[in-house]
Amino acid sequence: MKTDLVKNAAGRLVPVTVNGEPAVPYQGIGKYKPQKNKHAPRIATCADYPSDGNKLVPGLKEALVRAGIRNGMTVSTHHHFRDGDLVANQLFDAIHELGIKDIRWVPSASFPCHGYLIKYLEDGTIHHIEGSMNGPLGKFASEGKMRGTGVLRSHGGRYQAIQDGELKIDIAVIGAPAADPFGNANGLSGPSACGLLGFALADSQYADRVIVVTDNLVPFPCIPWQIQGNYVDYVVEVEHIGIPEKIVSGTTRITKSPDRLYLAELTARFCDVTGIIRDGFSFQSGAGGTSLAVGEYFRQIMKERGIKARFARGGSNKYLVSMLEEGLVDYILDGQTFDLEGVRSMAENPRHVWTSPFTSYNYHGKGNFAGMVDVVILGATEIDLEFNANVVSHSDGYLLHGIGGWQNCLFSKTVILPVPLFRDRVPVIRDRVTTLCGPGEMIDVVVTERGIAINPLRKDLLDKVKGTDLPIRTIAELKEEAEAVCGVPETSGVGDRVIAVVKWVDGTVLDSVWQVRT
Amino acid sequence: MKTDLVKNAAGRLVPVTVNGEPAVPYQGIGKYKPQKNKHAPRIATCADYPSDGNKLVPGLKEALVRAGIRNGMTVSTHHHFRDGDLVANQLFDAIHELGIKDIRWVPSASFPCHGYLIKYLEDGTIHHIEGSMNGPLGKFASEGKMRGTGVLRSHGGRYQAIQDGELKIDIAVIGAPAADPFGNANGLSGPSACGLLGFALADSQYADRVIVVTDNLVPFPCIPWQIQGNYVDYVVEVEHIGIPEKIVSGTTRITKSPDRLYLAELTARFCDVTGIIRDGFSFQSGAGGTSLAVGEYFRQIMKERGIKARFARGGSNKYLVSMLEEGLVDYILDGQTFDLEGVRSMAENPRHVWTSPFTSYNYHGKGNFAGMVDVVILGATEIDLEFNANVVSHSDGYLLHGIGGWQNCLFSKTVILPVPLFRDRVPVIRDRVTTLCGPGEMIDVVVTERGIAINPLRKDLLDKVKGTDLPIRTIAELKEEAEAVCGVPETSGVGDRVIAVVKWVDGTVLDSVWQVRT
Repeated sequence: MKTDLVKNAAGRLVPVTVNGEPAVPYQGIGKYKPQKNKHAPRIATCADYPSDGNKLVPGLKEALVRAGIRNGMTVSTHHHFRDGDLVANQLFDAIHELGIKDIRWVPSASFPCHGYLIKYLEDGTIHHIEGSMNGPLGKFASEGKMRGTGVLRSHGGRYQAIQDGELKIDIAVIGAPAADPFGNANGLSGPSACGLLGFALADSQYADRVIVVTDNLVPFPCIPWQIQGNYVDYVVEVEHIGIPEKIVSGTTRITKSPDRLYLAELTARFCDVTGIIRDGFSFQSGAGGTSLAVGEYFRQIMKERGIKARFARGGSNKYLVSMLEEGLVDYILDGQTFDLEGVRSMAENPRHVWTSPFTSYNYHGKGNFAGMVDVVILGATEIDLEFNANVVSHSDGYLLHGIGGWQNCLFSKTVILPVPLFRDRVPVIRDRVTTLCGPGEMIDVVVTERGIAINPLRKDLLDKVKGTDLPIRTIAELKEEAEAVCGVPETSGVGDRVIAVVKWVDGTVLDSVWQVRT
Repeated sequence: MKTDLVKNAAGRLVPVTVNGEPAVPYQGIGKYKPQKNKHAPRIATCADYPSDGNKLVPGLKEALVRAGIRNGMTVSTHHHFRDGDLVANQLFDAIHELGIKDIRWVPSASFPCHGYLIKYLEDGTIHHIEGSMNGPLGKFASEGKMRGTGVLRSHGGRYQAIQDGELKIDIAVIGAPAADPFGNANGLSGPSACGLLGFALADSQYADRVIVVTDNLVPFPCIPWQIQGNYVDYVVEVEHIGIPEKIVSGTTRITKSPDRLYLAELTARFCDVTGIIRDGFSFQSGAGGTSLAVGEYFRQIMKERGIKARFARGGSNKYLVSMLEEGLVDYILDGQTFDLEGVRSMAENPRHVWTSPFTSYNYHGKGNFAGMVDVVILGATEIDLEFNANVVSHSDGYLLHGIGGWQNCLFSKTVILPVPLFRDRVPVIRDRVTTLCGPGEMIDVVVTERGIAINPLRKDLLDKVKGTDLPIRTIAELKEEAEAVCGVPETSGVGDRVIAVVKWVDGTVLDSVWQVRT
C-alpha cells in the first residue's frame, strides 16, 4: 500500500490511486486547474418517455429494474432527511432483494439511521461508501471493515466531482417530500417536508437514470420544481420517505452552557470590534448551540447599531427566520433548513431563497457564493499551530463526522472557529491534526474561552484589535494553556491502511484517513 | 447546390450539409433517436474569477475582448426585448469597431429593430444568422443577400441544438433587466423589465463565455436568479438595453374584427362541445388578437360551468393574469410576458411561474411540458390538404415570421389552428405549403369562418362532433370555398437556392426555404 503514497503540497501522505482510479494529490489553494470538459450525460429523447408526462412506476424495485440496475453500479441518495431518512434503507432492501452486489453508494451524507446498512456492507450488496459518514458507518470504516476506500467530499466538492465526471452516477434515487408524476419535486410540503433538495441537484442533472421517490404525490405542476422533472426517468410512490421529527426539529435551541455562551459572545464581540459587523454585511453560522448563540449576539449588536445584513447564509432555523422577518436581514440564502420555522419561511417568503451546492459552493464554476460572505462561524474537532483544522475525525483516529459545506465556507472573507480549549480533557489545539480538512492559510481566527488567536497572515485583523480589550493570544499560548490542564496528548495510534481520503474542493486529495488500531 | 439535396420523410427537398456541417434529414415524428452525449462545456475554476464575486467590466467592447472575440466566432443574444431590443445593435457596433468579421449570429429571434444590422451583414461583420428572422432580415435573406444559410429552430429546438452541441456558442450576450455584479439576473424589474429570461437559459449553461449586459445593476443577491451568475464570466453596465414601450405592451387588446371574433367563438365552442374544456384542463393560446379572444370565450364557458383550469401556458397577458387572480386558473406556466400586467404578476404571484425552453419544449429531454397541455391554439400562414402547416413564410415565398414555440406546441393533446380562409385574397388552405413547419399528423383541427375541418386521424373528435350544430367540413371543402372567391392561386415563384432551413424539434431538417425570384 505504501508504495502508492506521495506527500502532497500540505505535507500529508495520500494515495495516488483511489478505488483503482488515479487521484491528483492536493497542490495548494487555487493551484490545480482542470483542463477537461464537464461530464456529458447521454442525450435523451421525448420519444422514449410517456407523452402525457406520467412517469409513475409501481414500486422502487420495478424502477430499479427499468433503470437497468446491475452489479457494481454507482447509486446515489441525498441527506436532506438527515437522521430521519427512510429512503436509503428501503433502496438497499430492494437492491438486496434483486440480488445485486457491489454497489458504490454515494450519499451526499450518511447518518446513524444508516447503521442499518452495515449488513449490506458485510454481505457484499454495498461495496463501499463515498460520502460523509456520521457515526456508525464511520466507525465501521475506521476499523477497516469496509471494502474499498471512503471518499469524503464537501457539498461543493461533491457537486464538482459529479459535474466533472470524476464521480459518475448510474442511478440517482431522490427522496422528495412533494412530487408530481412528471418528476418535478420540492422539499416544501408533505409529511416529510425538509425545505429544499439542493444536495440532489447534481445527481438529477448528471446521473444516467433518475428515480424520484415520494410519499406525497401532487398533480402536475409541483411548484416550485427544485428538482426538474425533465431530468427524471421514473417516479415512485411509497408510504413513507422520512420520520418527520428526525428530519426537522420543532425546536432548535441555543446553548445554555455558560462556557459556550462566552465563546459565542466573544466571537460576536470580535466581529463588532473589527468592523466585520457593519451595514450591509453578510454572515453564515451553523445550527449548533454555540453558532445559534453567535447569531443572537449578532442580532443584539445589529439592533443597537441600527444596521442590517444584506444576506445570511443558512442552514436556517427559527432564529435566522425571525431576523429575516424583523428586517435585520434582507435575504436568507439557504442550503438546508434545520427546523419547521425554516421550512415554513422558505415556502412563504420570497426573500428566503433556496440555493444549491452549485450556486453556493462549486469550486469548478465561474465563481460561487462562498467568497462573498463576510464572516463564517464554523466548528472543528482539532486545530494545529499553523491553523490547519480537522472536522471529520477525533484525536483517537475515528472518522465520525461529515464534512458538509465546511471546506467551501473557508473561502469566506473571514473564517472564525470558536472552540473549547479541550473536550473530555482532550486538547483541541495540537501539534498536528489527525486529519487535515482545511489548510491553515484559509482559517483566520480561533476563539477559545481563554482568548482569541488570530492567524499571523491576517495582519489587518491584528491591527484592528490593537488597543482593544479583546483577549488576544497566540495559538501556541492557547495550546500551552490546554496542556497545562490536560497534559501533552499522546499522538493517535492509527494504523497504516488508508480507509478513506478527504478531497479538497477542487477534487485533489488533501489527506488520508487511516485505519484505527483496535 | 442541387447535388446536396435529398427528399426527407416529409417529401421535402433538403440539403444534407448546412453551412459546411452535416445535417440529418427529417425522419418522421419520434423516429430520429440521438446516440450521442450532451455538449460538455470546459470546466471552469473559481481560481480564475474574482474572489469577491465582482465580475463588472467597463463596457461591452472590453468584455468582448476579455472573452476572446475572434473572426468567425458564434455569438448569441435573446429576444425577450422583442422589437425594443437595444442589445444586439450595440453588440455588433462594438464587434464592428473591434474590426471582427464573419460572426455567426444566433439570436433566439430577430425583429424589425434589427434591420439596423443589415449593414453588418453587407460589410462582412456578420456572416449569417441562425434564428428566426421577423421582417426585414427575413426579406434580406429571402432575396439571397445573406452569406451562409439561415437556420430556423423552434424555442425547444434551439435549446436542443445548444444542449446537443449542434450549435456551439462561443460568446453569449444576455441583456438583463436586473443583474448583480456576480451575474445573477432576472427580467422582473428595472426600466427594461420583460418578465423572464428563459430564451437565454441554454446560452448561459452551454456557451464558452457569457456576458450579462444590464441597465439596472442591483447589489448581490439579485433574486430570483433566472440566469445563474455561476455561469457568467463578465457583467457590463450600459445606459439602456431596451425601449420599454416596445418590450412589453401597456395594453394588450382583444380583436374587434367581427370575423376574428367569430373564429375565436367557434374555436371555444368546439372545445366546449368536445369536452376539452373540463375541470382541471390545461390550455395555451398566444398573444394575437384572435387568441386573446379565444381565452375570453374560455373564461365565459368556465364561469358558466363553474370549472377551473389546472394550468395555462403563457405568453401571458392581462387577460390570463386576471383568470389566475380570479381563481379560474391554478397556475400560469409562462415562457414570456407580453404586457406589463404579465410582468407584475410574475414578480408578485408564486402561481405565475417562469419556465424555460428546457422545461417546456426541449425534445431531447426526459419528457417536456408540451405534451401535457390539453389544447393549444396556434396560427398559420398556410395549411395544406394533409393538415401540414407553414408559419414562417408567405405564399410569395418571403420568409417573414419567426417560428417561436409553434412546433413544440404541436405535441399538445389537441392542436387547433383558427385561420381566415384567405388573407388579402390569398387563400390560406393550399395544395402544398410553401414551407413545411409542422407535419399534418400533429395538427388536429382547422377553424375557419366557413366551418371547422377535423384531421381524419382524430376519429375521437369526429365522433364527438356528430349530431352537434358545429359547422363541420372537410379541409378540401374549405379550400374549394376559398378558391371560389379568390380563384386558384398560382404556385409561388421561388428560385432554386436554399437560403434557410427549418429544423424539426429533434434537430433534423424538415424543409428548405428558397430564394425568391425578385
